[in-house]
Amino acid sequence: MESFADLTLPELARRFRDQSLSPAALAEHCAERHARYAETFGAYRAWNDELAAEAGLAADAFRRGLDLGPLQGIPVSVKDLYGVPGFRTYAGSPRALPEGWERPGPVIEAVRRQLAAVTGKTHTVEFAYGGLGTNPHWGAPRNPWATDEPRVPGGSSSGAGVSLVEGSALLAFGTDTAGSVRIPASMTGTVGLKTTAGRWPLDGIVPLSTTTDTPGILTRSVVDSAWAFRAIERGLGRTAAVPEIDVDGLRIGVPEDLFWDDCSPGVAEAVRQALSELEQAGARLAAAEMAGLDEAFGYFRKGGLTTPEFYRFLREELPEWLESLDANVRQRTEAASQAPAWEYLQLRHRLTELGRQAEALFERLDVLAVPTVAITPPTLAELEPEGAYPRINMLALRNTSIASMFGLCALSLPAGLDRAGMPVGLMLMAAPRAEEKLMAIGMAVERCLGAAYQRLGRAPMLRD
Amino acid sequence: MESFADLTLPELARRFRDQSLSPAALAEHCAERHARYAETFGAYRAWNDELAAEAGLAADAFRRGLDLGPLQGIPVSVKDLYGVPGFRTYAGSPRALPEGWERPGPVIEAVRRQLAAVTGKTHTVEFAYGGLGTNPHWGAPRNPWATDEPRVPGGSSSGAGVSLVEGSALLAFGTDTAGSVRIPASMTGTVGLKTTAGRWPLDGIVPLSTTTDTPGILTRSVVDSAWAFRAIERGLGRTAAVPEIDVDGLRIGVPEDLFWDDCSPGVAEAVRQALSELEQAGARLAAAEMAGLDEAFGYFRKGGLTTPEFYRFLREELPEWLESLDANVRQRTEAASQAPAWEYLQLRHRLTELGRQAEALFERLDVLAVPTVAITPPTLAELEPEGAYPRINMLALRNTSIASMFGLCALSLPAGLDRAGMPVGLMLMAAPRAEEKLMAIGMAVERCLGAAYQRLGRAPMLRD
Repeated sequence: MESFADLTLPELARRFRDQSLSPAALAEHCAERHARYAETFGAYRAWNDELAAEAGLAADAFRRGLDLGPLQGIPVSVKDLYGVPGFRTYAGSPRALPEGWERPGPVIEAVRRQLAAVTGKTHTVEFAYGGLGTNPHWGAPRNPWATDEPRVPGGSSSGAGVSLVEGSALLAFGTDTAGSVRIPASMTGTVGLKTTAGRWPLDGIVPLSTTTDTPGILTRSVVDSAWAFRAIERGLGRTAAVPEIDVDGLRIGVPEDLFWDDCSPGVAEAVRQALSELEQAGARLAAAEMAGLDEAFGYFRKGGLTTPEFYRFLREELPEWLESLDANVRQRTEAASQAPAWEYLQLRHRLTELGRQAEALFERLDVLAVPTVAITPPTLAELEPEGAYPRINMLALRNTSIASMFGLCALSLPAGLDRAGMPVGLMLMAAPRAEEKLMAIGMAVERCLGAAYQRLGRAPMLRD
Repeated sequence: MESFADLTLPELARRFRDQSLSPAALAEHCAERHARYAETFGAYRAWNDELAAEAGLAADAFRRGLDLGPLQGIPVSVKDLYGVPGFRTYAGSPRALPEGWERPGPVIEAVRRQLAAVTGKTHTVEFAYGGLGTNPHWGAPRNPWATDEPRVPGGSSSGAGVSLVEGSALLAFGTDTAGSVRIPASMTGTVGLKTTAGRWPLDGIVPLSTTTDTPGILTRSVVDSAWAFRAIERGLGRTAAVPEIDVDGLRIGVPEDLFWDDCSPGVAEAVRQALSELEQAGARLAAAEMAGLDEAFGYFRKGGLTTPEFYRFLREELPEWLESLDANVRQRTEAASQAPAWEYLQLRHRLTELGRQAEALFERLDVLAVPTVAITPPTLAELEPEGAYPRINMLALRNTSIASMFGLCALSLPAGLDRAGMPVGLMLMAAPRAEEKLMAIGMAVERCLGAAYQRLGRAPMLRD
């Protein structure tokens, strides 16, 4: 039988509609994959026991000639930060949050109304506050690309990328505050879209930073990402048109500063190789000066806007949760409790300024391109020494945090493998709310470089 | 000669266009009024020596058949918080701010491009931080309604209302953070429109609270206000349609709590009298429960969002100005320097919640009606005792601060005179961004109650 792993979402949706494939069969396939890999990879905090029933409903609807939207029958995993009816929300914490957090917001409602089949709730770093994917309460999902010893899958949407790689879901919802969709996408060889803050509503999602939180999606290809993006926009009552764009003539800016420092062996090389292939296909590469990179990352290291916003939330809405926080998270959060309001406001003001300057770059450039993550996904052992986690976590988040602080949208897609054989992401950053253009460019780039499974091959632990 | 005081802005605009009146003649009239009253009332920090030339330009344009917009040739005063080319900006402080603050923002640019004639920069409370209109550096403009002894004109747009009453300008730009357009309108017997935060851009205006600052306008009637509102919207590239509405059937909610406490003699009576006339004309009055009034005003008394936002601005952009601050302002500002960010964020969060609850009231009500200001404009002597200013200032700001904190738009129009013979304002509050409806209702109310000069008569000091 042809593998579902090679079929795009639009192709699956087409087969549902010409009755050559049933949502029930696809859901069964996903459940089998989950059963096979749950113990090895641990992507899910909770599997959906109703998956077959939900897929059955989608199948019944198709049989009755009902088409409720592109996502009908598509198996979707959801980060355990979103409220989804029928699931408790843990947000990576040791115990379930109050029931109000199970209420779905507009994004999940859009997905449910189209009769997507939810495969389950995927693991997250506690309260999404970390870029590597670790969690002292629930453990870290294992990165399917690591054969030597366990490596992190990237976070905070730590189960999202893994659910795609293992084949238990074909679309994964994550959230991205400073990289939490893009980092797991980069580290698992998948595609991650970070939307512009404010584009998709945050209601029904446990907050980390009310200013920079964004809902986002992980997929197996940019084609899938663009297709799901349009489906979600449609579910939100809008029409997003992704134009046809060619790599030839594309103006790609390459910032030469911060983004390339301290890269692990093979990371910068893989991204430069991908850029060189794009150049050969007619893209015009140009050095791009992004102002305030070191300054902005300096703010980020000190907690940025996130720590006071997160502390406000916990203190006011979940005070008991402050006690059981992951030590890595707790330290940063408590430090924030004393930060004065004027400093927070000064930072907002400054980031708005820097964001405007970054936005101006897109008057003469279509997109900015850099490595999504500078480093090889670390092994769990590498994170153990005192002081290792904060240092490595910051390095993992460094490149992605910039687009978050500057208010841009961004896409990570596979560029190649590093010297450790781990996936490397190419990050494309675009102007605020320019998701349509970003997806169009991403598709052109994917056509040039080849889709993930062509460019990277299969994850070693899946080669069976 | 017919008095310009009886002519509405649309009527003046019509006469310009049929050549029966020249902008130059109107500007000359305004200059004469200014010359006559400048010493008595002191509305302006700086008169525009180029007024005749600007009006001449508008007149020339009309003669050449050029019509650049409704405001062409209209004499407009501008609060000295806005950047206007050719004027230093003091913002009520003892010395001129850096030159960057002279750059006009979109609102002033919209006015200038329509060839309005700027009469000058009107006085403001220092950095707009106060509701009475006093200023230790420049003195307080005198309220033309007070014959016994000097009374405040209301603030912080302290010269705006006075410029209209004395007849030196026919449209006055103010800003309203917690009442700074509505209070001077109420206290001078004019009409004040506070726009919804975010509706009109704030660029080019010295900030007090980045969250609740709003540009606003004072006029001699609601007809003028609606006309100027549309003209400014047009200058901003939009089309605002103000529908025709009748008082008959209007659903007016009357909150019975906080707003009516501690009213000076005759204030509540004047507003109730106006409401009763509206009821007789067919309006349906209904008690309205606004949740969180005392809570919100409690926040406001402690500085609300304003103190940290204002402190951030001064500390970062005008540190030397911190030294020379009005003692009344300085005390509140310094207290804010230590407020933690999470408290600020908690307050934002809570006010958003309360704002949503207030907004829900407008599903079954067209508008909410209360006294604009609870108290008679105090005499300068009343403000002298230790502790008197903070107490009276808070009471003056109490009612208006609610719409600002809840994100509503609001209009103040004359309801009558209090027992001291001072003007009393009726404040109408409407849903966020419902300015068009608010203006329509205001015009209907004005038709029912009579325009200011009919309802209040002339200000005593102008009866000559």
